[in-house]
Amino acid sequence: MAAAAARDALLDELRALMAAHSPPLHALVVPSEDAHQSEYVSERDKRRQFISGFTGSAGLALITMKEALLWTDGRYFLQAEQQLSDRWKLMRMGEDSPVEAWIADNLSDEAVVGINPWCISVDTAQRYEHAFSKKHQTLFQLSSDLVDEIWKDRPSAKALPVFVQPVEYAGRTVTEKLKELREKLLHEKARGIIIAALDEVAWLYNIRGDDVHYSPVVHSYSIVTLHSAFFYVDKRKVSVEVQNYMTENGIDIKDYNMVQSDASLLASGQLKGSAVSGSSYGENDMNENSKVWIDSNSCCLALYSKLDQDQVLMLQSPIALPKAVKNPVELDGLRKAHIRDGAAVVQYLAWLDNQMQENYGASGYFSEAKGSQKKEHMEVKLTEVTVSDKLEGFRASKEHFKGLSFPTISSVGPNAAVIHYSPEANSCAELDADKIYLCDSGAQYLDGTTDITRTVHFGKPSEHEKSCYTAVLKGHIALDSAVFPNGTTGHALDILARTPLWRSGLDYRHGTGHGIGSYLNVHEGPHLISFRPSARNVPLQASMTVTDEPGYYEDGSFGIRLENVLIVKEANTNYNFGDKGYLAFEHITWAPYQTKLIDTTLLTPAEIEWVNAYHAECRKILQLYLNEQEKEWLRKATEPIANGRRFVACRA
Amino acid sequence: MAAAAARDALLDELRALMAAHSPPLHALVVPSEDAHQSEYVSERDKRRQFISGFTGSAGLALITMKEALLWTDGRYFLQAEQQLSDRWKLMRMGEDSPVEAWIADNLSDEAVVGINPWCISVDTAQRYEHAFSKKHQTLFQLSSDLVDEIWKDRPSAKALPVFVQPVEYAGRTVTEKLKELREKLLHEKARGIIIAALDEVAWLYNIRGDDVHYSPVVHSYSIVTLHSAFFYVDKRKVSVEVQNYMTENGIDIKDYNMVQSDASLLASGQLKGSAVSGSSYGENDMNENSKVWIDSNSCCLALYSKLDQDQVLMLQSPIALPKAVKNPVELDGLRKAHIRDGAAVVQYLAWLDNQMQENYGASGYFSEAKGSQKKEHMEVKLTEVTVSDKLEGFRASKEHFKGLSFPTISSVGPNAAVIHYSPEANSCAELDADKIYLCDSGAQYLDGTTDITRTVHFGKPSEHEKSCYTAVLKGHIALDSAVFPNGTTGHALDILARTPLWRSGLDYRHGTGHGIGSYLNVHEGPHLISFRPSARNVPLQASMTVTDEPGYYEDGSFGIRLENVLIVKEANTNYNFGDKGYLAFEHITWAPYQTKLIDTTLLTPAEIEWVNAYHAECRKILQLYLNEQEKEWLRKATEPIANGRRFVACRA
Repeated sequence: MAAAAARDALLDELRALMAAHSPPLHALVVPSEDAHQSEYVSERDKRRQFISGFTGSAGLALITMKEALLWTDGRYFLQAEQQLSDRWKLMRMGEDSPVEAWIADNLSDEAVVGINPWCISVDTAQRYEHAFSKKHQTLFQLSSDLVDEIWKDRPSAKALPVFVQPVEYAGRTVTEKLKELREKLLHEKARGIIIAALDEVAWLYNIRGDDVHYSPVVHSYSIVTLHSAFFYVDKRKVSVEVQNYMTENGIDIKDYNMVQSDASLLASGQLKGSAVSGSSYGENDMNENSKVWIDSNSCCLALYSKLDQDQVLMLQSPIALPKAVKNPVELDGLRKAHIRDGAAVVQYLAWLDNQMQENYGASGYFSEAKGSQKKEHMEVKLTEVTVSDKLEGFRASKEHFKGLSFPTISSVGPNAAVIHYSPEANSCAELDADKIYLCDSGAQYLDGTTDITRTVHFGKPSEHEKSCYTAVLKGHIALDSAVFPNGTTGHALDILARTPLWRSGLDYRHGTGHGIGSYLNVHEGPHLISFRPSARNVPLQASMTVTDEPGYYEDGSFGIRLENVLIVKEANTNYNFGDKGYLAFEHITWAPYQTKLIDTTLLTPAEIEWVNAYHAECRKILQLYLNEQEKEWLRKATEPIANGRRFVACRA
Repeated sequence: MAAAAARDALLDELRALMAAHSPPLHALVVPSEDAHQSEYVSERDKRRQFISGFTGSAGLALITMKEALLWTDGRYFLQAEQQLSDRWKLMRMGEDSPVEAWIADNLSDEAVVGINPWCISVDTAQRYEHAFSKKHQTLFQLSSDLVDEIWKDRPSAKALPVFVQPVEYAGRTVTEKLKELREKLLHEKARGIIIAALDEVAWLYNIRGDDVHYSPVVHSYSIVTLHSAFFYVDKRKVSVEVQNYMTENGIDIKDYNMVQSDASLLASGQLKGSAVSGSSYGENDMNENSKVWIDSNSCCLALYSKLDQDQVLMLQSPIALPKAVKNPVELDGLRKAHIRDGAAVVQYLAWLDNQMQENYGASGYFSEAKGSQKKEHMEVKLTEVTVSDKLEGFRASKEHFKGLSFPTISSVGPNAAVIHYSPEANSCAELDADKIYLCDSGAQYLDGTTDITRTVHFGKPSEHEKSCYTAVLKGHIALDSAVFPNGTTGHALDILARTPLWRSGLDYRHGTGHGIGSYLNVHEGPHLISFRPSARNVPLQASMTVTDEPGYYEDGSFGIRLENVLIVKEANTNYNFGDKGYLAFEHITWAPYQTKLIDTTLLTPAEIEWVNAYHAECRKILQLYLNEQEKEWLRKATEPIANGRRFVACRA
């Protein structure tokens, strides 16, 4: 509460600055993104969280002289309701009008709306400006961020070292990647490209870092021209080894703050590199090709403003697809990382099962004995946070572990209905043998990034919980088993994961799958499996990664989600109608589903076979990483299931 | 051959006219549509068929000084190959570049392309003009149709009578429909609308006619203003009764040819009606609302040219949705018409089964005895045409029969792979006990329009044919069984009918479903179930009709299609997540699937139950219309099936 009051006081400070500003600001937009439009940002970049108190990964704050509003999406509605003080109004994306429309409708003619031009993409800025035009409102680019000015104890910028990601894990050399990139520049008559997305810079230069929690990226920009390459970074982060590595690859290291002036030089054709880039293109190519390529989705307004607008080529980044389509070395690494990760999850579930029985008198993972006899005095108290710390411990014990890939969603009962719930040590819930427990977690390993969700119950689940779990599992299996022709998008496949829920009038308010990086961001585009229009644009391709994570959430009572990571692969179909070539999925996540939560009478024989085959593989694949008790636990967890209805039919 | 040679000579005649024309034409576009952009057109409007020899319902001919090209879609590739002489080049839609792009790429700068402005929609014309602009080519509106000039024995315009569709079948009065329409005009600030689509005029005025084979429509236009309504028609078709009916409903009857000059008057606000229209709007409303509404998809270039371009409102016709969403009376009529129609199909299949055994020594509909012993001298010769005439006979014997709703696709073996095959008496194939027979047919009844496809085999089908038939059936059942939230489009549902085929690398090159009229066009928009982008625009709504017709076609050997008509209905789901309301389908088509062609080991228990339940209903519903032998045949045809695999599993 005290914290909330202090935070509300900040609104007044902010409004004072807005009024004192020249010109005076009628509103201030505070996005959650950093200067690279990242989803996960460093502590010092969490301006929207600082001002609003809402800790979700996605959201936008708007402060006017009278109101304070926060927009976020369906994953965060409940969490935002809990975290926002009553001086804040929650705006539900998809239900309420978007921020730019709200401003156009609610603010006065010629209102001035302030924004930090580094923290807004060109796409978003242009969408805002279009909406503002009808009332001659303006989007004003602030020279300094007003939130930073009132942020007393704002974390300082750390200078954590840059690492090289060895080719034995990256699979392709920087030389190969730069060559391919320059061919695309030439094809589009571009003399150069500005790369702002942190994971694209890291992928292109085969480097990693520690600047952002959960994402092994370096705060940096890249500019690649036909004959030079530049790396804009806080030079304190660059060791001599990395310095030499960059030089060998023909990459100039320049100070992070130089990127804006260099953008101008690139536009005027005066940007020159010093290093030997190994490029086969020369001055003439630079002159003949005058365009500057930016991805308007990740490039910020501040950099765009430095370019010659007529010469800007706005296209999806040429790095997006090569990064999304994994090479054989990356695929091999991802498979291995997911085996170690699955072992950690199994160890965790076995440990948790034991703890729940020992300390909470739960009937346990395998038994459905009614209710539970919670002990009077417990030796150990298990909370959403303490158990997720334990899970992190199991992961940390694995080879190549580098940290988590996102904040673990460890959620009991009603908290599981908060789709992107993140528990806080002081306020989080205690485990409960009578409630569903949902755990969505992942890690960064040197050879791959993981993301897995399992939902379990250590007591007696209700019939309703079971039938919902089974419907989610059916959708999860349907997507996993899909075979589809080349050219099919995630937009078309999305329905396969929903139909089993729709049959009962159930659904979930999030997409079904996202790409996942190779020791990079846990959420990666450009493809996705979703009902969102953007999912129509990118067909799935062989060697892409994508998650399979349908769910069902009952506000105030429970939530269910099941998530595996899939690799898109060529399908060997008997025929190849239309010579299109057909695709299918390979699942690389290994951890059992809780058979106790499955109503087998609702499964088809093929679904029964799918579950049994998956469980048999889990058992085989995870063996090496488990001790005897854990092996025994997994053996029980993966015992074959049979179709109730089928047996009834046979008895008759 | 002779016919082909004569037709080729026409090309020379046409080119002579093109050269003599002022300005000279470099190319002539001959669409298949009439002055109302109809899919099925009267004999005298079949200009594209006359000049090219291709009889398909969809296609476009382009004649240049050197070349003659015909564009058509996947349903007609094979048929066009067979029907076009070698002076014609087949252009495959979806594979080859569209006509406007071909013209822009292949014709000279400033080339003049002639078109009959009545036979091209505003949409299409604007698309052409946009493509032509880059080479300053022009789309020239011809004052007379050049094909008509060389068409010696062109059928003359018949004056067949207009009928009133009684409200006991139409379900809503013209007054109600006009009132609703005028509210929409006012809402869009339109003073009036030009209605060019024949089925929209027929629906709005509750009239039917005989001007177009298969579609009970009248060659006519309608203009509706805020206080008047006009019916443009060949007055010889209008009896005194219809004359009075129109007057009672406040509709002015004007000569068909008056529509163009009246369009100008409407644009200038001088179009006045004489009849008492029962409209509550007056002169002032006419002046305040200055826009003229056209549906650029069905309104032709000739009429559009008469309007004040700045005042044209181009939106989907306000009649499209009310026509597509059937009223309770129409739904009731459709259900009844489909029962009579199903009975005719069963009588036909029973008769055909008997004939095939009698005259072709076939093992028959029920037996799989290997091969067939074709008799030396057959008493009767069964051809694709003679048997479909028999089918028409069974339909004609039913109450309210008015004719067929499209040319019956009666196809044996390889012909069944020609998706929209239409057999000709002199050239068509003979029935064959060793080949698949596909029959896609439908009729017009006073109370509804029908469309059904069944595929059968009277000998021993191959395992491959069975597994393909079963995959098609699985897709057919999956769509029929779908439950989905309001807002879901046919674009999202399309995949449900394809996944069972995709699993084997099979697919089909056509959409999965189209709307169907109420004693109107057999193909009706605006919704459809398809992968085509246009299917994204219109969500399915309760009380819409739509077909469920997946298929599989193996060029040169066989084709399979199964088609039922569905009504979209509210689903009774246990829950209503998101308060969206959920929808499902009711099938109203009744005729058995051939269980001999089903590989039951590939069906799930739920699919087995679906087939058995559907067959039990067929038996119950069709009883009354069948004689003893037919009842017995249907009893055998609808005997319950069981899942092979299930029994194997039980024995074990």
